[in-house]
Amino acid sequence: MGLTYQEEFTIPFDMVDVKQEIKLPDFISYCLGVSGRQSEELGRSDLYVFQEFGLIWVVTDYELTIQRLPKYNETITIKTEAVAYNKFFCHRMFYIYDAAGNLLLDILCYFVLIDFETRKVAPVPEDLIAPYQSEQVKKLPRAPKYQLLENPSVQEFPVRYFDLDMNGHVNNGKYLEWMYEALGYDFLLCHVPKKIQLKYLKEVEATSLVSSRMVAEAGGSQHEIVVDGHIHAQAVIEWRERHVAG
Amino acid sequence: MGLTYQEEFTIPFDMVDVKQEIKLPDFISYCLGVSGRQSEELGRSDLYVFQEFGLIWVVTDYELTIQRLPKYNETITIKTEAVAYNKFFCHRMFYIYDAAGNLLLDILCYFVLIDFETRKVAPVPEDLIAPYQSEQVKKLPRAPKYQLLENPSVQEFPVRYFDLDMNGHVNNGKYLEWMYEALGYDFLLCHVPKKIQLKYLKEVEATSLVSSRMVAEAGGSQHEIVVDGHIHAQAVIEWRERHVAG
Repeated sequence: MGLTYQEEFTIPFDMVDVKQEIKLPDFISYCLGVSGRQSEELGRSDLYVFQEFGLIWVVTDYELTIQRLPKYNETITIKTEAVAYNKFFCHRMFYIYDAAGNLLLDILCYFVLIDFETRKVAPVPEDLIAPYQSEQVKKLPRAPKYQLLENPSVQEFPVRYFDLDMNGHVNNGKYLEWMYEALGYDFLLCHVPKKIQLKYLKEVEATSLVSSRMVAEAGGSQHEIVVDGHIHAQAVIEWRERHVAG
Repeated sequence: MGLTYQEEFTIPFDMVDVKQEIKLPDFISYCLGVSGRQSEELGRSDLYVFQEFGLIWVVTDYELTIQRLPKYNETITIKTEAVAYNKFFCHRMFYIYDAAGNLLLDILCYFVLIDFETRKVAPVPEDLIAPYQSEQVKKLPRAPKYQLLENPSVQEFPVRYFDLDMNGHVNNGKYLEWMYEALGYDFLLCHVPKKIQLKYLKEVEATSLVSSRMVAEAGGSQHEIVVDGHIHAQAVIEWRERHVAG
């Protein structure tokens, strides 16, 4: 088991949707910020990792299991831990608790290190990973595989200026936003996600035209983010119907 | 002069653009959160104002004067003060300082109170405003007037699910994002705003189709946000050319 790190967070107005529930794309970005602060505390900031090793962290997969989404003004605890790693992959967990200590959701993240020069996946240096006290293992559970979609519905989204992060690529959270958008307002109003599996394959660049492809089925939806015929991300989402307040 | 309230803030990764500078739409929302925390501290939370008075705060105008935009990982101080009010209008200032105490930008906000039932502007109750120690004045400087645009360029944006806040209206910050978007990626890469005047006239609802109209001129741009032929917001932005790092 790795070192744990935690922060409290009170959900602000601009991070909730029309149901007063947290916007998951924004929240995932926020959680990455929390793990960034753990890394700083351990002397392993992104800047240090880049300067000392020429490497950058990249998320390849997320798996979210959701009991309930945090709500406006609720104070939650975000606990994170770099759980385990093998030669190339690192697993990090986020556990989100309410004030009474109930688990609201958890997020499993798959990270790899990319060599900044070659853009290739690099082995995890022992010196870099040691302070996290993660477990070194031979094999890690692999992220799920996804089927190619047949006859999906398609919605197009031009990449916007503010979609880009300081690396000039679309911020991770945007992919999930485009996937949600494909489902439509009426569906989103009366459904909440209970499980989300999400894979990132390729960065999306400025001025791209993104196709958000979707196939809906009973209780779930499957998604692809496509640019110029190439798949950049895939997801499977299980939904539960929302109990609409009377 | 009113009571001042301040917080420090370190600019996170997901709040900066490709130039490593803060995304203004997100930052304005963040600043409103800061003033919300002042209000809570003074026993005047939004919930209290609604429950005791049946009123809600609405921003009508912003005026931003920008020396330099805060950058990634920079720690800034956000200082705010409810400066003055008359029968219907309240002026609040935000001052943003760098770690050395230099003023980076300031934001003047015009607020009114809306009666939740009638949706009409309500007089400012003395009991509500007293704790802020704002100056009561007969007249406040009025927000600027805007010209109607002639032969603007037009870009259309369907309102997205995550554009909406928990009141079911588009979050204020989105208007500025649509205005920026009308300028295009290449322009935004090599320009920074030095002055922004922004007026909100009407809320934008879910499932609207928004037209972002724009006229560019030397050193500046004028903007309208239009839905079904009605103007919902107007802005004038002065730009300075960016010194591109060599």
